[in-house]
Amino acid sequence: MRDFDEHNITRAVIDRFGETPDRRLKRIMTSLVSHLHGFIRDVEPSFSEWEAAIAFLTRTGQMCHDKRQEFILLSDTLGASMLVDAINHRLPAGATETTVLGPFFVQNAPAFENGADISAGLPGELLYVEALVKSADGTTLPGALAQVWQSDDEGFYDVQHPDAGTALRGQFRADGEGKIHFRTIQPAAYPIPYDGPVGDMLRATNRHPWRPAHVHFMISAPGFETLVTHVFAAGDEYLDSDAVFGVKNTLIREFTRHPPGQLPDGTAIATAWRHLTYDFGLKPLASQAA
Amino acid sequence: MRDFDEHNITRAVIDRFGETPDRRLKRIMTSLVSHLHGFIRDVEPSFSEWEAAIAFLTRTGQMCHDKRQEFILLSDTLGASMLVDAINHRLPAGATETTVLGPFFVQNAPAFENGADISAGLPGELLYVEALVKSADGTTLPGALAQVWQSDDEGFYDVQHPDAGTALRGQFRADGEGKIHFRTIQPAAYPIPYDGPVGDMLRATNRHPWRPAHVHFMISAPGFETLVTHVFAAGDEYLDSDAVFGVKNTLIREFTRHPPGQLPDGTAIATAWRHLTYDFGLKPLASQAA
Repeated sequence: MRDFDEHNITRAVIDRFGETPDRRLKRIMTSLVSHLHGFIRDVEPSFSEWEAAIAFLTRTGQMCHDKRQEFILLSDTLGASMLVDAINHRLPAGATETTVLGPFFVQNAPAFENGADISAGLPGELLYVEALVKSADGTTLPGALAQVWQSDDEGFYDVQHPDAGTALRGQFRADGEGKIHFRTIQPAAYPIPYDGPVGDMLRATNRHPWRPAHVHFMISAPGFETLVTHVFAAGDEYLDSDAVFGVKNTLIREFTRHPPGQLPDGTAIATAWRHLTYDFGLKPLASQAA
Repeated sequence: MRDFDEHNITRAVIDRFGETPDRRLKRIMTSLVSHLHGFIRDVEPSFSEWEAAIAFLTRTGQMCHDKRQEFILLSDTLGASMLVDAINHRLPAGATETTVLGPFFVQNAPAFENGADISAGLPGELLYVEALVKSADGTTLPGALAQVWQSDDEGFYDVQHPDAGTALRGQFRADGEGKIHFRTIQPAAYPIPYDGPVGDMLRATNRHPWRPAHVHFMISAPGFETLVTHVFAAGDEYLDSDAVFGVKNTLIREFTRHPPGQLPDGTAIATAWRHLTYDFGLKPLASQAA
């Protein structure tokens, strides 16, 4: 087959993938070619536009290193990550909604006992977090593993500071009542990294890079799908325009401000502090979508 | 706007691009989001599949350097480059068909006089090239600039040999009759570079990386669209399965083999040699598509 033109080339390229041994890969490549060509036919890019697209993708790849994943940021800012998330989480009633993992999760964060302080001495308003881990049917899940991570008071994660140690992240085990609790500081809204090609795209399209303040949770227990989600601070100005489309109403909570007095664990506190509570519901493995 | 799900997120993301100042960019981003989300909805990627896609794109960007453009190879092998080419070349009668630029073009190749030998002493069967440069209406174009480049006898371009100098590429001016002519060697079929992610994709889909033997031409003249094309060697085994979908019947010519005797410029030659002739037709600027 030769002599391809703008009308017959899509069929020809799909046919060329006809001998793909893996059926799933064949299906993916067929769909990719069809949608990629559909995009090209729709916008009819000039050569210089196509070169600009190639250069953008190249810069995006070259911006990536062990602490920066620019293609995830691109996927996030185009709503692709949340769409993949939605497709993979058709949830039963009682299961907590999910959102993007984001680029700041770190494997093997330090393990803490319940009640510990994960702030590593960073400045900020004290935040006391209490969470219950349950099955979607309401059964508590003692021993569930909760990984938490969040920004500091200025909106930065520990991994964004070149020489700083671990801070504001850790692993907790749910106690006999399925509860985890810890001290931290109030997180701040922050911009996704915008000094790369994704930032250029946001600027060129008059979009801002901000995410509303939140705490990340990844919660796992045997027999359940691992839950990846955030809890967002009510009242944040970016709840309606999160740069990565991650906000869901069920994930918003008051980070309630209290006057000086006593923390939930009985400790006296001389400053104002905040309190966040959330009950997480995990989806059983192999359960049907609601 | 918040609480996006798999049904409403595409509209929400498109709306987020609503304030893009440049109308063309707004149109492109709208179409991109629509087709990207369409692809995701169609194949419903798992998280691990989406991670694999992110990793593939990242590796593709990181494979690029000043002599390697892996995203162009990806565009080429998905038929995207030829589709962009076709859309941008709706040609009038008499105009030579176009094909991909490919990754081996080099700016500012050395200028030669007509009749020169561009082989730089590389081994191979002598090829004598004679070409006429005309307008699509048949008028010859003296002074037109022809840039040529090709592989060697083993299918490699000069830029693929780390320490070699320039070879098998050069610039020629059409003479008073619109003619260019030069000596070179017979090019060979060759695989596109397949030691990167694009090669992995070709292997995983049972596709070969080969291109049929050809000579590249880029021809420009004032008042005409620059022509980027190849002339392919008739009889090559890869004419029907070019890895980048670049072959068109009108671009195939016999590279005719002749016994020892005399070259077209009158020089005696003691070995067999080959002869390629081609008449190029350039599209006038601002002409209407046929």
